[in-house]
Amino acid sequence: MVFFHCWPCKQRSSSSSPHNPTRLNCHKMFVPGFGEASPEAKAAKNLHNFFNYIAVKIVSAQLESYNPEAYEELMEFLDTHSLNDGDEFCASLMRESSRHKALALRILEVRSAYCKRDFEWDNLKRLAFKMVDESNTKLMREYVLETSPATENETGK
Amino acid sequence: MVFFHCWPCKQRSSSSSPHNPTRLNCHKMFVPGFGEASPEAKAAKNLHNFFNYIAVKIVSAQLESYNPEAYEELMEFLDTHSLNDGDEFCASLMRESSRHKALALRILEVRSAYCKRDFEWDNLKRLAFKMVDESNTKLMREYVLETSPATENETGK
Repeated sequence: MVFFHCWPCKQRSSSSSPHNPTRLNCHKMFVPGFGEASPEAKAAKNLHNFFNYIAVKIVSAQLESYNPEAYEELMEFLDTHSLNDGDEFCASLMRESSRHKALALRILEVRSAYCKRDFEWDNLKRLAFKMVDESNTKLMREYVLETSPATENETGK
Repeated sequence: MVFFHCWPCKQRSSSSSPHNPTRLNCHKMFVPGFGEASPEAKAAKNLHNFFNYIAVKIVSAQLESYNPEAYEELMEFLDTHSLNDGDEFCASLMRESSRHKALALRILEVRSAYCKRDFEWDNLKRLAFKMVDESNTKLMREYVLETSPATENETGK
């Protein structure tokens, strides 16, 4: 018995979809615990923080080469401020000093450019598909290998 | 001065790409600190654990309705085992008992189906684009609103 749930999602036109674009895609497994939000929104929020982390890495690598003073300031700020919440990090950085503000604006610019231009979305999807297949196979193989000698003993082989 | 870096990436054929498919896409910002891996692989790994978490939620919601005993067993297992590493969780679950093994196999099946069928990849990308735009605007607006009275005082208004 499987419960299905209709996400309140808008059907997006997609060339890869075998469905008629006017038909609602309502045969999804029910995912509890997300309230008004969706798993996609939660994943997007995590990626948003990840892109901020990447942008800080990119900007600090650039600064290290051509502006060691600003690099040191950013490193010092990183010592005392967490990157877990990217927006909170940038809000604090903006308010530290006018030099830090310039760094924060650069990070905002870079995280947007990275998300929209550099990050390989198709590759992300491809890697996730590959990962779930390979992990499932690996988990089952390891379990079988681990338990098969016991089975052999039980059958007296 | 901006440093560019060539990812050792294979150019994937994409209908949305304006580039010639044989030309390498090598105008990306350098992201340090990922070694042999890519940001996409790191993000895929995080999503993989997220899909496992979702699969546990889906399976437990199903069990709650039609198999309260198995539901209780899963809940008890969750009390003492972290979902942070999805593969580690499933490997432990498989080895707990034969009933737990059946649950683990169901979770492996569901996480694969969720990743490949239910999860809205286009929506994820759309939400991430929207989030970076809205967050950047919000951060700058809040900063301007917060600092503009000081500017007014400074100019004697």
